[in-house]
Amino acid sequence: MRFGLLHEHPLPRPWTPGDEGRLLREGLDRIALADRLGLHRVWVAEHHFQEERSHGAGALAVLGAAAQRTARLRLGWGPVTLASSIRHPAVLAAGLATLEALGDGRVDLAAAPAAVGAEVGGFGVDRATATPDWVEQLRTTARLLAPEPFSGADGRHVRMPPRALVPAGSRSPDPGLWMACARPEDVRVAGELGLGVLAQWLPEPEEAAEWVAEHRAVLRSERCVPAGAAITAGFAVVLPAHVHADERTAIDRGIDGAHFHAYAREHYETFGDHRPGSTDVWDAFSRHREDVGFARSIVVADGAPLPVKLLRDGRASLRGAVGTPGQVVELARRYADAGVDELVLVLDGGRTAHEHAVASLELLAAEVLPAFAADPAPADGLTAAERDAALARRRPGPPLDPGYAFGPMDDGPVAEGPGGDAGPAAPGAAGDAAGSGAAAAGRGAAGVQVLRAIAQARGAQAFRTFVRRSDDRRLERTIGSARGLAAVFATMAARFEPDAAAGFTGDLRYELRGADGVVRTWTVSCRLDGATAHRDARPDPAVTIKLGLADFVRLAAGELDPGKALLTGRLDLEGDFAVATRLGEMFGEV
Amino acid sequence: MRFGLLHEHPLPRPWTPGDEGRLLREGLDRIALADRLGLHRVWVAEHHFQEERSHGAGALAVLGAAAQRTARLRLGWGPVTLASSIRHPAVLAAGLATLEALGDGRVDLAAAPAAVGAEVGGFGVDRATATPDWVEQLRTTARLLAPEPFSGADGRHVRMPPRALVPAGSRSPDPGLWMACARPEDVRVAGELGLGVLAQWLPEPEEAAEWVAEHRAVLRSERCVPAGAAITAGFAVVLPAHVHADERTAIDRGIDGAHFHAYAREHYETFGDHRPGSTDVWDAFSRHREDVGFARSIVVADGAPLPVKLLRDGRASLRGAVGTPGQVVELARRYADAGVDELVLVLDGGRTAHEHAVASLELLAAEVLPAFAADPAPADGLTAAERDAALARRRPGPPLDPGYAFGPMDDGPVAEGPGGDAGPAAPGAAGDAAGSGAAAAGRGAAGVQVLRAIAQARGAQAFRTFVRRSDDRRLERTIGSARGLAAVFATMAARFEPDAAAGFTGDLRYELRGADGVVRTWTVSCRLDGATAHRDARPDPAVTIKLGLADFVRLAAGELDPGKALLTGRLDLEGDFAVATRLGEMFGEV
Repeated sequence: MRFGLLHEHPLPRPWTPGDEGRLLREGLDRIALADRLGLHRVWVAEHHFQEERSHGAGALAVLGAAAQRTARLRLGWGPVTLASSIRHPAVLAAGLATLEALGDGRVDLAAAPAAVGAEVGGFGVDRATATPDWVEQLRTTARLLAPEPFSGADGRHVRMPPRALVPAGSRSPDPGLWMACARPEDVRVAGELGLGVLAQWLPEPEEAAEWVAEHRAVLRSERCVPAGAAITAGFAVVLPAHVHADERTAIDRGIDGAHFHAYAREHYETFGDHRPGSTDVWDAFSRHREDVGFARSIVVADGAPLPVKLLRDGRASLRGAVGTPGQVVELARRYADAGVDELVLVLDGGRTAHEHAVASLELLAAEVLPAFAADPAPADGLTAAERDAALARRRPGPPLDPGYAFGPMDDGPVAEGPGGDAGPAAPGAAGDAAGSGAAAAGRGAAGVQVLRAIAQARGAQAFRTFVRRSDDRRLERTIGSARGLAAVFATMAARFEPDAAAGFTGDLRYELRGADGVVRTWTVSCRLDGATAHRDARPDPAVTIKLGLADFVRLAAGELDPGKALLTGRLDLEGDFAVATRLGEMFGEV
Repeated sequence: MRFGLLHEHPLPRPWTPGDEGRLLREGLDRIALADRLGLHRVWVAEHHFQEERSHGAGALAVLGAAAQRTARLRLGWGPVTLASSIRHPAVLAAGLATLEALGDGRVDLAAAPAAVGAEVGGFGVDRATATPDWVEQLRTTARLLAPEPFSGADGRHVRMPPRALVPAGSRSPDPGLWMACARPEDVRVAGELGLGVLAQWLPEPEEAAEWVAEHRAVLRSERCVPAGAAITAGFAVVLPAHVHADERTAIDRGIDGAHFHAYAREHYETFGDHRPGSTDVWDAFSRHREDVGFARSIVVADGAPLPVKLLRDGRASLRGAVGTPGQVVELARRYADAGVDELVLVLDGGRTAHEHAVASLELLAAEVLPAFAADPAPADGLTAAERDAALARRRPGPPLDPGYAFGPMDDGPVAEGPGGDAGPAAPGAAGDAAGSGAAAAGRGAAGVQVLRAIAQARGAQAFRTFVRRSDDRRLERTIGSARGLAAVFATMAARFEPDAAAGFTGDLRYELRGADGVVRTWTVSCRLDGATAHRDARPDPAVTIKLGLADFVRLAAGELDPGKALLTGRLDLEGDFAVATRLGEMFGEV
C-alpha cells in the first residue's frame, strides 16, 4: 500500500487578505514534509470557480513550486478538467513535460471530464459532447508525450498539424495517466483508456474490491485501447483523514474538515445553488450538514474498526480515515486486501489547522506507513504479457510525414486522419485491381469517385445516386470489394456519434453474403469516444447484422429501409435489439 | 534604470537526454542569483513548438518554481501568446493569481498576439480574427483579476457567465500587464490598452526614444481605454547581453549566444521552413548566419560605445549589450536618457555556458547596477492626473447581477443572442409552475432535458426525438411554456447567420396560438452582426409568421416542413416573401 496526499486548497469563509498565500505556502510545507517522510505522491487539484472548496486553480504553479521542495515525491496534476474550451492539449502536455524536466520525472496527470456547473458553464463546455471531447483531449495529450514523433490530430474536437513538443519530456513511462473517477461507472472508462483510477466517491474497501476487479478486467480485455505509451494500472482511493493517538482528539481535530471536504464537493456537484462572490458554503455546511449526510453527532470514539461511511440512529455521516494509527492501519489493510494500491489522504479539509495536519502526517509516517513497509511492492495485477497485449492495441497515429514543414506564416496543412485501422481507405487508392484498359480505368474512376463521396460526408447524395442506378453485380464489384468495404466501414466508424450511443460500448458484427456465397465479416467496435472498424469477427458481439453484400451497400447509402428489410427477411438481426434500434442515430445517416 | 532577465530556455541541437532538466535547473539557479543580486524582474517566455529556440513551454511551472527561489524579484509570465484556441482567459488568470499567492505579489504578464506559424498553425488560430481575439482574451483576463466582481463576458471570442476566480489574487495593482511588442507599431496598441511595452525588436536608444514618446502620447490620449484596473506604463527593451572586464572575452563568450537568440527568433518569425523533429536550427545558423545579418567576423573589440546593431564592411550584425561593464553602463545610460526604464537582458542565448552567464550576471550586479543606484526611481512619465483620466475610461463591465446563481448541472443561463433580453431560460428552473407531485417532477425533468437539448447544438437529435414522440398538449406544456419559448427563441437568435441573411436587417414577428386560444407574440430582431429575441411585438415587422404553438415547436425541431405547412394552411405568412423564403438558411436548422 502506498500513501499519497490530495491538496484541493480549501478555504472556508470568512476570508481575510493573505489567506490564500498562507494556504498555498502551508500546503507546500506539508508537501516538503511528505517528501521527507517517504510518502509516495501528492495530487494538486485544479478546480475552477469553486469558492471555499478549492483556491489553487493555477495548479501547475503549485506543482512547479513543489518540484523545488521535493526530491522523490511524485507530483500529480489533478483532478484537472479536460475540454477543448479550457486549454489546448499541447498546453497541457507542455505543462507536464516542463514539470518533468524540473523535477526529473515523477509526474502524473489525473484527467477529469467536465462535470460541475461551475466549470461546464464557466468555460462554456458543451455537455452533449463533453465525453468524446475530454477523451480526445487526453488521447492527443498522450500522443504529444509519446515516443513517436507527433504527426498531427484530426478528430472532432482536436485538429492540429504535426508539431514537436518542447520541452519533450521523458516520453515514457512518465507522466502516469490517471482518471479522476467520480462514480463507480467511471472505472470502466478508465480501463478502456488504459488509465489508473483515482476514486473520489469514497468506496468502502468491500465496494472497492468490486471496482478494482472491473478495472483490471477491462484493462485485460479488447476494450482497452490505451491512450498512453504505457499502461497506468493503479487503483487509488481518496479518503479524508486525520490520525491521532487519541481517537477522540482525532475526531475533534479532523472530522469537520473531512465533512467539509465532501460537503463542498457535493455543493458544487449535487445540490448547491451558487451565487459567485456571495454564497457562503461554510455557513450552509454548518447549518445543513446533519440533513445531508454529514451528521457530526453520530461520529463517536468507540475503538471500533472504521467504516468510511457511517449510519447510526437513522442518520448518515462520513467517518473516513479519522482515528488512531491502529484504526487507520486496519482500514488501509482492508483496502490493500481489496487490491487498492494507494490511499490518497485529504488531511487539510475545511478549517483543519495546519499544525494539526502536520502532526497527523508525522504520526502517519511514524505508525501507519511502517505497517506496510514489509509488504511486497504494490502490483497492479497485470502480467507483462497482458500489458504488452494492451499496448499492442494502442493507436499511436500515422507516422509523421517526413516531408511536412511549416513556415513562419504558414498555418500548416491539416494532418490526415489518425483514426481507424480499417486499412487504407484513402480515396485516391481506390478501384479494383482487376480489369484493364479503358473499362478498368472507367471503373476505377467511378470507384474513386464513389469512395470519395462516401469518405466525405457531403457526398452522400452522389453515393446514393450511384447506388440507385447500380445492380447487385455492379455494387458487389465496386463498393463490395475489399477496398470498398474498408471505405464504407471506415466512414461508418468515423461517423459514429458517441452522444447518440448513450454510453453503449461493444461490438457490432456484420456478416455480408455475396453472390459468390462468401460471407464477408466485419466488426465495428464502439467505444465511448469513437468507433473503429475491423476486417474480422470479434467474440461476443452486442449485435450481429446479416444481409446480402449488395443490400448492405444499399443500406449504407440510405437506399434500403432497414425496417422493411427486416420485415421482408432481407436483413437478419441477432443480439441486443435495444442497441439495434439505435443504429441509425448512432451512425448518422450512413 | 532597472535590470531584468529574459529566460527563453534555448537548447541548440544536438540534444542528449537530461539536457532539458539541466537547462531549466540552471535557469532557476540564475533566477535565484538575480534575486540575491538585486535585479528587478525575470521574464519566462512561453513559446510553443519552437525547437532549439525555447524549451520551457510550461512557463507557469518554471515561475512557480521561481517563486520558491526568490523573495523580491518580480516574476513575469511571458511573452505568452493569447488566443481562444490556446487557453481560456480564466485559466490564464488563475495561473497569475496562484503565482501571486505563492510569491506574495510581484507578478507580471507579457501578452503577445499569435504571430509565428509554429503557434498559429499548431493551435489553429484564425489569423483573420487573431487581433480582436487576443485583445478580448486580455481584457477578460484583466477583468477576472480586477477589484470588481466579475459579471461575465459577452464578446465575439470570449463568452462566459459570472464566475469568481479562486484564488482571487491581489486584485490591483498586480499583476502588471504588458505587451510583448515585436514591431514598433505594436507600441500604439500597448498604449491603447494601458499596457507596458516589452520591446523585442532591439531598437537603438535613439529609436527607442521615439517609441517611448509614442507610447506615452497614446497612454495620455482618449485612445487609451485600459484593460487593467491599473496602468502599466513602463517601457522595457530586450537586449542580448554579456559582460566581462575584457571586451574580447565578453565577445568570445557571449556573441554566438546573442546571435543565436535573434537568429532562432527570425527562423520562426521571418524566414525559416521547419520540419518538426528534424530541422537543425543551430546547424543552419552556423552555415548561414553571415548571410542573414549575424556576421561573426565584424564584431571586434574596439573599446567604442556599443551600437546594438552593427554595420561594417557592407555586412550586418548584432552587437547587443556584449562588452565591458563600462560599455554596458554607457549604453544603458543612453537608454535611460531615451526614457526606457528597464533593460531586459538575455544572458543565456544559444550555447552560452551557464557559468559564463553566472559570471556575467555577477559582474553586472557589481559594476553596472551601482552606476544607476543614485538615479531617482524610474518614473514612467504619466502624472497622477493623467493616470486617473486614463483609468476613468476603463470599462470594467456591467455590475454583477446579484440574483445570478448557477447550479451543479446548470450550464448558466441559456445563451441569448448577443445583447438579447429574452429573459431567463435557465434549464434548471424549467418546467411549468403549475402541477404538483410526481407529475410536476416528471414534467420538470423532461423540461430540463429538452431545454438542455435545445441549448446544445449536438442535442438537436434528442430534441427532434422528443418532439416526434409528443402530442400537442405535451409540446405546449413543455417547450411552449414561457421559459421554453424563451429558450427556443434565444437559440434561434444565437443561430442567426448574418452571412446567409445577405444584409437583411429587420424584425420577424411570430404569433403563436395555443390550444388555450392565447396568442404568444415574439420578435426576432435581425441586425448585421447578430439577432436578439424579444417577448413582445415590435412595429413594422418585415415578416409575420402565424401558426399553432405546437406546430411552431415542430418547426423549430425540424419536424414540420415549412413549405408543406404553408400549402396546407397550418402556417400563414405575411410580409416580405423574399425574406421568408430565406428563413431556413438564416437560422441554420432550428
